[in-house]
Formats: sequence, C-alpha cells, structure tokens
Amino acid sequence: MKIAIDAMGGDNAPKEIVLGAMEAIKQLPNLEITLIGDKEKISSYLTDSTRIKVIHTTEVITGEDEPVRAVRRKKNSSLVLMANEVKEKRADACISAGNTGALMSAGLFIIGRIKGIDRPALSPTLPTQDGKGFVLLDVGANVDAKATHLVQYGIMGSIYTEKVRGIASPKVGLLNIGTEDGKGNELTKKAFEQLKKAPINFVGNIEARDLLNGVADVVVTDGFSGNIALKTIEGTALTMFSMLKKTFMTNAKTKLAAGLVKSDLKTLKNQLDYSEYGGAGLFGLASPVIKAHGSSNARAIFSAIKQACHMVDHNVTETIENTMKSIDLQEEE
Amino acid sequence: MKIAIDAMGGDNAPKEIVLGAMEAIKQLPNLEITLIGDKEKISSYLTDSTRIKVIHTTEVITGEDEPVRAVRRKKNSSLVLMANEVKEKRADACISAGNTGALMSAGLFIIGRIKGIDRPALSPTLPTQDGKGFVLLDVGANVDAKATHLVQYGIMGSIYTEKVRGIASPKVGLLNIGTEDGKGNELTKKAFEQLKKAPINFVGNIEARDLLNGVADVVVTDGFSGNIALKTIEGTALTMFSMLKKTFMTNAKTKLAAGLVKSDLKTLKNQLDYSEYGGAGLFGLASPVIKAHGSSNARAIFSAIKQACHMVDHNVTETIENTMKSIDLQEEE
Repeated sequence: MKIAIDAMGGDNAPKEIVLGAMEAIKQLPNLEITLIGDKEKISSYLTDSTRIKVIHTTEVITGEDEPVRAVRRKKNSSLVLMANEVKEKRADACISAGNTGALMSAGLFIIGRIKGIDRPALSPTLPTQDGKGFVLLDVGANVDAKATHLVQYGIMGSIYTEKVRGIASPKVGLLNIGTEDGKGNELTKKAFEQLKKAPINFVGNIEARDLLNGVADVVVTDGFSGNIALKTIEGTALTMFSMLKKTFMTNAKTKLAAGLVKSDLKTLKNQLDYSEYGGAGLFGLASPVIKAHGSSNARAIFSAIKQACHMVDHNVTETIENTMKSIDLQEEE
Repeated sequence: MKIAIDAMGGDNAPKEIVLGAMEAIKQLPNLEITLIGDKEKISSYLTDSTRIKVIHTTEVITGEDEPVRAVRRKKNSSLVLMANEVKEKRADACISAGNTGALMSAGLFIIGRIKGIDRPALSPTLPTQDGKGFVLLDVGANVDAKATHLVQYGIMGSIYTEKVRGIASPKVGLLNIGTEDGKGNELTKKAFEQLKKAPINFVGNIEARDLLNGVADVVVTDGFSGNIALKTIEGTALTMFSMLKKTFMTNAKTKLAAGLVKSDLKTLKNQLDYSEYGGAGLFGLASPVIKAHGSSNARAIFSAIKQACHMVDHNVTETIENTMKSIDLQEEE
C-alpha cells in the first residue's frame, strides 16, 4: 500500500503532516508513504524515515491561488507532483490538506474520473448525536448539479459507507425542504424519482433540521446546498461555543461552573469534531483522493491516511466502477 | 391600525394567540384586532375584548393540508377569512402561526403581489452573536428562484430593515460558497452582477459560516438554499443544547455546575430564540403578512403584532412599490 501526501498543504504544514505520516507508519504495517514538498523543511520533523520517501520540490499552491490556473501552471507544486504519483501508479491514493479547489482540479485533470461518474463529489463524514456520523455529498465540487449526478452521489456514498464505514445497507437520504414525497425544487423532485430506482437503500427526503440526528447514513445534495449546510453547521457550532465561553465568564459563579465541566465540555467539542472521521473523500476519481481539513493536526492526518488505506483495501473505486457498469448494462437491456 | 389574526393557527392556538392579542391591545393604543376562529374556544381565553373583534368560523386549515388545495377548498377557514379581511381593506395587515404553505398561497391568491415584485419571499429575522440580528430571504416561498428575484429580495429586505429595524443603509449580502467575487453557481454569479447595480448597499458574497456573526443585515438567497441554511441553524443549535444537557447530567460534579449556570444558559438560549425578533414577513405581498412560528407563545404573537404594526406605520409596502417603479423607469430610459 503506497500513499502520496502533499506535505506543504494546510495551515500546519509541513510539521503536522510529517508527524501524522510517522504515526501512520508506526501503526499500519504494510504502508509506504511518499511525502512531497520542501525536503529541508520536512526533514526537521522527520525523525524516523522508515518506509517514508520524500520527493523534493519548493513550488507550492497556496490557498489564494486560482485552482484551475494553479494546477495548469504550477507543474512542480507539491500538490501536482502528488497527483502525478497516483496517475503514474507509483501510489494507490493521495492526501492533501491544501487548496480544495486545486485538489479537485488536479484530481479531475491529472488522475481522472471513474468511468460512468460524470462529476466527482467532495464528501466529508460529519458527526451525529449518536456518534455514528453520516457522509454528506456533494459539498462543493459541482455547484450546478443535475439529477443524474445526485444519483451517482447516492451510489458512491452508499458503497463508501458500506465498505469503509462498515454499515450494511446504508440509508441514503435526499436533502430537501420537507420530508414528504413531491417536495422540493425542480432538481430534487427529479432526483427523488431517479433515486427510488437506484441500487441503494433510498429512504426519501430528509430535512436539514435532522442532519445531526442520524436519520441517514448518506445524504445527497447539490454542491451549492451541501456547502451551505456544511458551513452553517460549522458556523452555528462555533458561534454557540463562543457564546457558551462568554456565558461561563460572566461572574464568579459561572467561572466556578466552568472549572467543574471543563473536561466534559472538551469531550462534547470532540464529539462534534469531524476530523475524527478522516478527511473529505473526492468520490468519483479513478483512485482515492482525500481532502484533509485545512487546519488538520497530526491526528487528523493520521485519520485521513487510515481512511485512504481503507478505501484502497476495500476496493471502493473498483466497486463504484463495476456498479456503474452494471447500471449501464441494465439500461441498455 | 387594524390587524387580522388567524386565531386557530399554530401548536398553541387559540390560547397563546388570544393572550398575545390582549397584551398587544394593552400596549399599543391605536390598535384594533380581529381574531378569526372558533368563537367558543376563543372566548374562554378572551378575558378582555377591548378593541378585539371575533369573526366566528369552525373550519381550519391544518399542518397536514396540501397548501394550494386547502386555500382553494376551505373557503371558510380561519386563514382564508383572515386574508379576506386584508383583501377587502377591513384590515391593514394579517398574522398566522399556521400552515406556512397555505399562508403563502392565501397571500398570493387572495391578497396579491406588489406590482414589480415577481415572487414573494419568506423572510425571518435571525439572531446574531452581537444581538443585532439579520433578515434572511427567501427561506422557502420560491424554491426555483431567478437572479432577478434575488435582486427584488435585496431591495425588499433592505427597505424592511431600514424602516422597521431602524438600521440605516443596511448591508445586503448574497449567500454563496465563498466570499470572493465570481464564486458560486450559475444563479449566484448572475445575481451578484445584478445586485451590484441595485439601489441597495450590496456588500458582496457572504459564506454560511459567517451568518451568525453579523456580517450583513440582509442576506439574500434562493428559497431552497435559504431553507437549508435556516433549518441547519435550528438543527445544529437544538443538537448542541441537547448534547450540552447530557454533558451536564454526566455526574455529580457536572450536575453541580449545571445548577450554577442554569439561569445564564437560559439567557444564552433566549439570545438564540428568534421569536424575539417577531415572525417571518412574507415580503412582496400587497399588504404586510406575517408568519409567526408554529410553536409561538403569547410573547411571540405579541412580537409579530408589533412587527406588523411597524410595517404598516412605516409604509414598507408602499416604499417597495415605489422603489420598484423607479427602477422600471430607469430601465426604460
């Protein structure tokens, strides 16, 4: 198993990327890692290079770079060289915590799509109250989606959830403005009818209000609405933690209370921390590509590496390709 | 000032509706209220009928009724009779805590639109961390919006915020998947260009992550995305309060802490309670129509009545109509 990692992407690169990689090597026996980035900067953290190779480059795609242009022009950037490792079969999967748009472009232009999938989907796993979590896709790879794309998301999300998350016959829901059949805009009405016929356990429309209640294991939506939902969850949670902090600082009594529940609140915060579930998969590409959160620490990078390994081990890509083929055959009959 | 109120709409009708109406009469000297609903049920709560008239009917549109059909067939329902009061100029504005879709249909078919506005928008005011709040529109009246609709929302939201909320030159933002110009799907890219030219203080794209941070006084979006954002805020806040409650019940220490911060947490919860800001206006109709939250208590109904009065007093409807006319004239020049 070989994983290529962009060592220069994200807020805490290369330090946390390197630490996460070393941790993964320690825990996963058959793993080999290729780190791509500035050798000098990487080596100050790379205290053990067992099964870790470094490809040196100083070119970097930043968060400010325009994605498509950056991938086309910065041919020696750590992100582009990482994608090349996968394309040329020197790695089975790749991970970056850098520019999301650039990773999507590199995935699309360098690694390419799975046959039968029209558009890749950015697919994070988000926390639920019961700790089970759910996959939300798409959260922004494809902002003008068609109904057929949503069906492909349902199939990809379902396969990933079954193979990697170990949930049999995952419940697939369609994010909508009401739970009743026939609700929604033109896109969701059309997608609803097509999802009913797809080879998945489609449970119908679900409302944004119920996302964190675990009503579905996979939630499909267009990239625009998915992005709104994801960022609204993040923003609301951050706002509430910030208001809670202020509440605890009100007076001596509340400060005393804060001391008493500090560790329990930390647990609560961790329950809502979705880096525990790994990064966001870019489902639909010819090999597993993981977008780790920009603020990833070593632990989040380690989670993302495990996730990439699981996707390779459980043949997620091949299963998606074969499923799309079998649907095509059925349609031709 | 005359306000017609559907006394039978919402989870706590007619009790809380009647109590809210009596409170409003007490506090607002020039107000007259017409309650529409079951006279017998209403009178058990109506301890003071000063300036309150009751129109009796036993027909009710429920939450399960299909909106358009219900409005067409249940011609004697409290909601339809309420809309008739406004249409026939016996009331200046109306309020219902009942079926949202039915209220929108009654507004559209019975009261009618403002000339120049293509689609009404459901427009709640939501809380922000700083307590200022913002108007989000549309949250579901029109789920397949066009760019021109979003521009109309910006104008209506801006006029409402200036006149009723007393904020000079309100900042109008476009809900989008990134803050940079040129971001978004086909709809938001087109709307962005048109909003730049509208007679409003357009501040550009805003992200869902920043909604509760007060980055804009008015946020425009299509009804589908707006509904997702609204319900995601609600769901995330509810989930967090529920998890927080569990955290406080963990052990003796956390229970002690809970006792110490109970009243402060109540304050925090109230800060996030958007019934304090009144109901959701159905902007774009020929008279003010307010959708109070389904779970409204007397206090929320009172807020909604004040809000309706402010909209009438400050000529919100007329100002929108005149603004749309002046834009039309400019375009013809």
